Amino acid sequence: MPQINADRLLSDLRTLRSIGAQGTGVVRPAFSPKDMEARRWLKQRYEEAGLEASIDGVGNVYGRSRRRGKALLSGSHSDTQPTGGWLDGALGVVYALEVVRALAEDEATKAFPVDAVSFQDEESRFLGCLGSRSLTGALTADMEQGVTDSGGVTLEAALRDAGLAGVPRLRLDPARYCGFVEAHIEQGPTLEDTAHKIGVVSGIVGLRGIRFEFRGQQNHAGTTMMKTRRDASAALYELAHRINQEFPKVAAERTVWTMGRVRVEPNATSIVPGYADMDLQFRDQSEAPLKAFEAVVERLVAEMNARGGVKITATPSRAPIAPTQMDPGLRAHLEAAAERHAPGKWQRMPSGAFHDAGIISASIPSAMLFIPSIGGISHDFAEDSRDGDIVLGCQVLADAAAAILAEANAR
Amino acid sequence: MPQINADRLLSDLRTLRSIGAQGTGVVRPAFSPKDMEARRWLKQRYEEAGLEASIDGVGNVYGRSRRRGKALLSGSHSDTQPTGGWLDGALGVVYALEVVRALAEDEATKAFPVDAVSFQDEESRFLGCLGSRSLTGALTADMEQGVTDSGGVTLEAALRDAGLAGVPRLRLDPARYCGFVEAHIEQGPTLEDTAHKIGVVSGIVGLRGIRFEFRGQQNHAGTTMMKTRRDASAALYELAHRINQEFPKVAAERTVWTMGRVRVEPNATSIVPGYADMDLQFRDQSEAPLKAFEAVVERLVAEMNARGGVKITATPSRAPIAPTQMDPGLRAHLEAAAERHAPGKWQRMPSGAFHDAGIISASIPSAMLFIPSIGGISHDFAEDSRDGDIVLGCQVLADAAAAILAEANAR
Repeated sequence: MPQINADRLLSDLRTLRSIGAQGTGVVRPAFSPKDMEARRWLKQRYEEAGLEASIDGVGNVYGRSRRRGKALLSGSHSDTQPTGGWLDGALGVVYALEVVRALAEDEATKAFPVDAVSFQDEESRFLGCLGSRSLTGALTADMEQGVTDSGGVTLEAALRDAGLAGVPRLRLDPARYCGFVEAHIEQGPTLEDTAHKIGVVSGIVGLRGIRFEFRGQQNHAGTTMMKTRRDASAALYELAHRINQEFPKVAAERTVWTMGRVRVEPNATSIVPGYADMDLQFRDQSEAPLKAFEAVVERLVAEMNARGGVKITATPSRAPIAPTQMDPGLRAHLEAAAERHAPGKWQRMPSGAFHDAGIISASIPSAMLFIPSIGGISHDFAEDSRDGDIVLGCQVLADAAAAILAEANAR
Repeated sequence: MPQINADRLLSDLRTLRSIGAQGTGVVRPAFSPKDMEARRWLKQRYEEAGLEASIDGVGNVYGRSRRRGKALLSGSHSDTQPTGGWLDGALGVVYALEVVRALAEDEATKAFPVDAVSFQDEESRFLGCLGSRSLTGALTADMEQGVTDSGGVTLEAALRDAGLAGVPRLRLDPARYCGFVEAHIEQGPTLEDTAHKIGVVSGIVGLRGIRFEFRGQQNHAGTTMMKTRRDASAALYELAHRINQEFPKVAAERTVWTMGRVRVEPNATSIVPGYADMDLQFRDQSEAPLKAFEAVVERLVAEMNARGGVKITATPSRAPIAPTQMDPGLRAHLEAAAERHAPGKWQRMPSGAFHDAGIISASIPSAMLFIPSIGGISHDFAEDSRDGDIVLGCQVLADAAAAILAEANAR
């Protein structure tokens, strides 16, 4: 059984953390100088681990094993949120590196090919999961066209400034692989609350986004009588609150919904707003509650529009993501390894957050492993996990990788 | 009876409009170069009309009559909203100038003293009704301390840049005056909707402001289950909607309320907001509904806080303004003049907007006259009134001024 090197693992994680560190957090948005520095650092680590390493034309760092046989791909992303935590993405990237090294150091596994990857822009500076989409051929020229970050920088300019203009883009060869396994922090409190050490992901939840626009009439807040008002903000408050009252009636146990972005114009204390908009997002591991929510939204909007006054429109705010099931064979190996190293202290769970594994799973069998997040905190400088949990998770991944490769190469 | 000169009135209004014109609107915020240019232009008009004119240390333009006897003060403000209409304030300023001239040209009224004024910063670039507050002694050094505009410019710097540092500030001498009359556009649709030409203001509504703060816990929108969330935006939507359901039950006929400013943090589609705030403003011509609203707010906030989760605080967002009654004697003269020139086509009405007359009324008897706003639109480049309505309103004001002065100087 391959043995991971805990000191080497933690040391590499801390070095990666230092690139773009701000206090306890990390600021390393895709294509920023710090992000590219981290990718060049990782490429060197891949080479030292014996992999053929490259940074492709969208910024993916890819380390290809020189061994023959069915290969396992592992990794995650090294870009961060604008004010991100140190483990979101980085954990799975360094785990993959350590698994490559641990299997190479073990007589029983040194012949197995393990490839490692750090995908680019999982965190949506320009386009969520840009790197994994590009790798699987899901990124079309249309999708890249005119894309900018929230500051107006174009993707084209960011690629050029990062020195990636004209650099070839890699394509995943599905025939090469027996699967892809991504490790990640949970980013929620479930494992901590249940005192579990490992989560084996059953599937990644599906996601829908709806943008509401409210068109009324801007007016003076002192001279416009209530009965003649067409107040865009009042309609927004009503619809949002009624959604929060109606959704629980049709939600499943783990369905979640959020209306966390709102804009009111002109957003002044003494002016009746003439325009407002708001985003609704909802997620579940099966389609049924998502469809039920869409029906509730349609009914409430129709009912409010029938009253006249403010005109409400509801349009998809993003391409829907369908719920994705993780590969049962890979899951079984992760579960067996989790039971060996943390008997009774692991659980099956859906992933409420989206991950590159959701993209890669369309091309090759994919699975995910979670470790606990302290306080469930993520996308925040305070994001953290215990050293012991970090080490344990990597050992489970290395074990599972050895078992997956042994089975795939047994024929 | 004094006769106003319609061409001269409209010509002066259009000249004033040209100072800071942008399209059909006017951009002349208090103390801006355009505002000061307009004030110097007005000072010259006052002098040509025979007044002793000055610009005081807060920017008030004051034209003092050389005639003896009880004087009438008239005027309004010539500063505008950041993107203002051409008549808001300017109408009452030019009306006062024309009334001075018309009364001076009439044998029966030429001996009556009429003073004219354009107050500074009615529109709250720094401090609402700064000029009239200063004139009546209601502006304390404390209130000026550290005041800035929304761009961070201090009042002190604005005064210095406008050349007003060290310039004496005028003080109103209540003994000099029989009253103050301010003409203004209605800024609402009531006169137009009822086909009335003149509104005689019964009083200026009182106003309360409450700022709500909602403190919850920021979380990932995919991994945080509904039952563990403390979503600041959900609490905001609920409170706002319930206020909109409860207030009508205790409102008077013309009570108005608005929640037109809202902020959600971090205001992102995929993040459960940990903080939000919102302003509630409500107005009525009597205290009872204002007090009833405060009780409703207290009850709803207590009820929601008792549930736990998001913690809501409600604090006054501004000094309350008490409802102000206009002087019955001055009103009677305005009503008589309105009935002479627009028989059956005038009405008594409260002012839903606040005006300098609300400040001046604490020192001397005050009254207001409204003319119709086309479409009820104000604080917008589209603000406008018909020429015929503008001319009629000024004639009514001149008539009423003559009658007020005749009565005050009859003893």
